[in-house]
Amino acid sequence: MTTITALDDLVTALPVGVVITDPDIIASYRQDRAFDPDAGTAMAVVRATSTADVQAAVRWCAANNVPIIPRGAGTGLSGGATAVDGGIVLTTEKMRDITVDPITRSAICQPGLLNAEVKAAVKEHGLWYPPDPSSFEICSIGGNAATNAGGLCCVKYGVTSDYVLGMEVVLADGRAVRLGGARLKDTAGLSLTKLFVGSEGTLGIITEVTLRLLPPQAAASTVVGSFASVHAASKAVLEITSTIRPAMLEFMDKVAINAVEDQLKMGLDRTAGALLVAQSDAPGAAAAAEVEIIEAAFTRCGATEVFATDDPDEGEAFTAARRYAIPAIEKIGPLLLEDVGVPLHKLPDLIDGIEAIAANRDVLISVIAHAGDGNTHPLIVHDPNDADETARANLAFGEVMDLAIALGGTITGEHGVGRLKKGWLPDQLGADVIELTQRIKDTLDPQGILNPGTML
Amino acid sequence: MTTITALDDLVTALPVGVVITDPDIIASYRQDRAFDPDAGTAMAVVRATSTADVQAAVRWCAANNVPIIPRGAGTGLSGGATAVDGGIVLTTEKMRDITVDPITRSAICQPGLLNAEVKAAVKEHGLWYPPDPSSFEICSIGGNAATNAGGLCCVKYGVTSDYVLGMEVVLADGRAVRLGGARLKDTAGLSLTKLFVGSEGTLGIITEVTLRLLPPQAAASTVVGSFASVHAASKAVLEITSTIRPAMLEFMDKVAINAVEDQLKMGLDRTAGALLVAQSDAPGAAAAAEVEIIEAAFTRCGATEVFATDDPDEGEAFTAARRYAIPAIEKIGPLLLEDVGVPLHKLPDLIDGIEAIAANRDVLISVIAHAGDGNTHPLIVHDPNDADETARANLAFGEVMDLAIALGGTITGEHGVGRLKKGWLPDQLGADVIELTQRIKDTLDPQGILNPGTML
Repeated sequence: MTTITALDDLVTALPVGVVITDPDIIASYRQDRAFDPDAGTAMAVVRATSTADVQAAVRWCAANNVPIIPRGAGTGLSGGATAVDGGIVLTTEKMRDITVDPITRSAICQPGLLNAEVKAAVKEHGLWYPPDPSSFEICSIGGNAATNAGGLCCVKYGVTSDYVLGMEVVLADGRAVRLGGARLKDTAGLSLTKLFVGSEGTLGIITEVTLRLLPPQAAASTVVGSFASVHAASKAVLEITSTIRPAMLEFMDKVAINAVEDQLKMGLDRTAGALLVAQSDAPGAAAAAEVEIIEAAFTRCGATEVFATDDPDEGEAFTAARRYAIPAIEKIGPLLLEDVGVPLHKLPDLIDGIEAIAANRDVLISVIAHAGDGNTHPLIVHDPNDADETARANLAFGEVMDLAIALGGTITGEHGVGRLKKGWLPDQLGADVIELTQRIKDTLDPQGILNPGTML
Repeated sequence: MTTITALDDLVTALPVGVVITDPDIIASYRQDRAFDPDAGTAMAVVRATSTADVQAAVRWCAANNVPIIPRGAGTGLSGGATAVDGGIVLTTEKMRDITVDPITRSAICQPGLLNAEVKAAVKEHGLWYPPDPSSFEICSIGGNAATNAGGLCCVKYGVTSDYVLGMEVVLADGRAVRLGGARLKDTAGLSLTKLFVGSEGTLGIITEVTLRLLPPQAAASTVVGSFASVHAASKAVLEITSTIRPAMLEFMDKVAINAVEDQLKMGLDRTAGALLVAQSDAPGAAAAAEVEIIEAAFTRCGATEVFATDDPDEGEAFTAARRYAIPAIEKIGPLLLEDVGVPLHKLPDLIDGIEAIAANRDVLISVIAHAGDGNTHPLIVHDPNDADETARANLAFGEVMDLAIALGGTITGEHGVGRLKKGWLPDQLGADVIELTQRIKDTLDPQGILNPGTML
């Protein structure tokens, strides 16, 4: 077979051990955390150690018309790193260098470094990299950039795109180009850096990012509120965000509260209909003022219990509880994980609508949310061995996205479109914007070898 | 002539008064504030009143292969709104609606509204739109988006791109598309919104922007420092930005200080080599702490005079003085206005190098800067009636950009490339990125009718 012979060329072109053909290892790179059942099997995995390795792999794929699937830590939830039959999976997990420049408050990172490792490395210089996906301990900075990942502090500090000042990216023809750089202001030419952030590996492979850093975050004060109903909690969210910018404003529904409490036994109110966890990181006395505003909003909106603390460890326990919601609900059963967002005032409509979808399809849907920016994660629990329930869960999965679109929202706030949501992208963007997107894709990747089947 | 006949079709297609053929009015739309001497003369000016007007004009231009030059308030400093012979100038100055949504903290604006008017409209709802070009009282929000405009508070709050959540844009074929929306987090599809911000009218014409707003800024405290030398001031800039995030950190050299003092007579130290104006808007007691840090840095770096005030009006007087530097220096003579930026630690090298260029070319160059993010405005004074001096000024203009590029910087931090700097763009970006840029331009504007001659 020509491809097998050709693969020898790739093995020869790259350092020893970079091209992996062991079937067991190849199998372990078939799926990301979306566990796409339609995942294929790659002909090889390339564990790139340098930009030159990535270039060689892309050039070989271009010459042989072989699809190449870029992959960071494989923690994606939309199937953006799903292997295709006969393709190459290129993982950047071995590219892990970082250089921090405290004067320009920037860091140059290779893509394989984990988000938590970036945070730790810049902290040594007294600096802070804000974006904090719940998976920050296991997700890579390259994947964060490729999906424009979000997190809990985005409500105040913005998303990954707001922190990527520049990058090196390998194009579909194997050229490596540098975009932007450690300059806070730079409007020379088109904003290509921003275009590549969130492009999910469909336009190029990010081999380095230059990140903007901030001075350290002040210690946060935390306010937790239990509410009898989702509506009461939503009302409190609107009250707070129209007054101040909390550093965090997270939501869990009853199912999530109970699932977390089952695991962590931290004394959450199991009877509550909804829980909000808010934080203020305003400096000094300003934090106390913000905490008061949050407490007052909680109380005014009918909170059944309000607890405030300025002890960072105590606050972190509640944040950790919220972050733990997905694994906790996974104990009930495998999940279809949504990432829909709506303009903030539509949050109650979205949550009501999801409840109706769950009832109609007879499936369990738990909603957790980065409530402060309207970004929710409805979690659809289903038993994959129950074909009927799985079918109903899949219908509900689509209906939740339909609902978000109808409410003027988005099918994905921070996870990316990947393979799982691409069927809904045209409904959100419209035919004209899809055509615009396709034109840009076609001009940057005319052979269509970069992550085919993702996004478009 | 076919074009004259065809122009009748355009007049007919648009509301009465929208298409202007009066030669005097056409002449007044030849140049923006870059006063490009090579400006052409349009065949007509379209004063669009709606997106439909813009679409009709673009469709007519596409059908007749006529260049269309989009224009906001005409305050651009790079010649991005320079008329071309036989083209159409499309001005959005009559499109001035704004709707503020306090709950989602966003505003939907038409492009013709001035930046100051946007600020005022959202202030009525207790909100704040941060980007503040020095020209904020006369520049339009559409132009701000098209150039990715900056300003004085960017050092802490970022640039226009950080505040544009969505837009409506008319494409080269006359279709109007909506990109993004009032969603703080949305990673569905490519980041086209960010691509169009800063594209200087070369990819489409922005007919509406959705802006992210912040709660009001706390009252700022101001610290002003006089320094014997530019080096001492640069050192203070580095000390401050490696410790805190000032809300403003502006720089004026001796020429600028004296030019401003000539006009405003506010008692600035005329003997000083450099002046820094810093602000802290940290809430409550935190401001006092930041002011102390700034004062200490000024003193440690050898400031000859340090003045601090928490009186907002007094502080605003110094900010206004800094903003007034360009008009004040213009009294000495017409300016070639640079907008070069460098990574922060290269600021002293840049300023030294500019001094050497000025001496070598025997021209007066005054430097003012948004020092906190390394974005400088060297102002090259020249007498346009002195051909030799003008030639030397033009050589210096290019050499300053060459220097910025050599120092790892940018030819434009916030004004855009326009026509005046496009010759240097390839030197900054490199041939590969220019080719990438050209491919995107060609695929979105295959006829090349959108602002030809700008950027590329």
